[in-house]
Amino acid sequence: MVKKTKIPEITITRLSNYFRVLDEFKRREFYNIASYQLAEEMDINDSQVRKDLAYFGQFGKPGMGYEMTRLKEEIQKILGLTRKWRVALVGVGNLGSALLAYKGFQGQGFHIIAAFDSDPKKMGKKWAGTVVYDITELKSIIRKERIEIGIITIPAPAAQEVANLLTKAGIKAILNFAPVRIAVPKNVRLSNVDLSLRLENLSFFLSR
Amino acid sequence: MVKKTKIPEITITRLSNYFRVLDEFKRREFYNIASYQLAEEMDINDSQVRKDLAYFGQFGKPGMGYEMTRLKEEIQKILGLTRKWRVALVGVGNLGSALLAYKGFQGQGFHIIAAFDSDPKKMGKKWAGTVVYDITELKSIIRKERIEIGIITIPAPAAQEVANLLTKAGIKAILNFAPVRIAVPKNVRLSNVDLSLRLENLSFFLSR
Repeated sequence: MVKKTKIPEITITRLSNYFRVLDEFKRREFYNIASYQLAEEMDINDSQVRKDLAYFGQFGKPGMGYEMTRLKEEIQKILGLTRKWRVALVGVGNLGSALLAYKGFQGQGFHIIAAFDSDPKKMGKKWAGTVVYDITELKSIIRKERIEIGIITIPAPAAQEVANLLTKAGIKAILNFAPVRIAVPKNVRLSNVDLSLRLENLSFFLSR
Repeated sequence: MVKKTKIPEITITRLSNYFRVLDEFKRREFYNIASYQLAEEMDINDSQVRKDLAYFGQFGKPGMGYEMTRLKEEIQKILGLTRKWRVALVGVGNLGSALLAYKGFQGQGFHIIAAFDSDPKKMGKKWAGTVVYDITELKSIIRKERIEIGIITIPAPAAQEVANLLTKAGIKAILNFAPVRIAVPKNVRLSNVDLSLRLENLSFFLSR
């Protein structure tokens, strides 16, 4: 019986960061990269780099480093970034509008196909190229457009209700920006963005 | 010679999460908490909880768990959350406006005292209670208001320039939302928020 290894959350985050560092190096026309070079760029130990990558197979040779193009492609595959992801956003307030206009998502394959709001003044209009629909149409649009990922950018009190709507519509992954804990079924992946966390990292260092 | 222990980044993030979990438990009127309870809430091992907390001293007794109020206060102290932090935000676009209106910051002691923009139509006005100043006044306002933390919410091309302005004004910590790598002097703490990272965590799991 083969047990699927549990990959630590932080390893997944670091994979994203390795991917960015490799992208940076590639633009500088490097061809090979050693674990210590990746480690240096990210301010971690090189043994950590080797351990992270070992979860997914054998990418480099001892003393030879990694072949850049192949490593980048492998990480891209592991992170699911070799395909397009169809995303819906719920809540076209300031944060929602900012995310609709955010250029970074599309470059990584995340396409916001539809936005939803309950404000009649916003419905039927486009924001940064994305149509804003009436939230009552959420289920039918998500199914019709085969959307897989939902982003929640509404105030805390309504977040759970919107999460329920999204999961009932068949969404399998939710990115929640509302500053509240929400519950989702076991088969749905939830990721919470807590904007205060990063500020607390800064206050920790300023307090030392 | 005593060497200051290097605390892993992820431990600091987890401290913020312990703090939130303890807050949750406190509202449910628990008085003691075991490491396995904290671990369960955060989906990690209880040995990890003990290891994280051990960086900062001896908080609990073996077999007795932690005294909730004391542990919460200690973590608050470690994270620098027992005092107010004076924050400036540069770039009052959609994302900047969203952060100015974000209720979560103030509750944790982060007060956005001043905002800056280069658009004359925004200058002199208030947004969510915060005055928007001309960016040319940045240095004098930051010094006068004794601001310590800067948040960058402008487009990528101008981010480095704004970071330079902030550090020259004496800012010691920067939270950067611009999707670009910026450089800061060694004595300045920089934290980058990459909004795509969390989506990549979701696509990783959807791809498995």
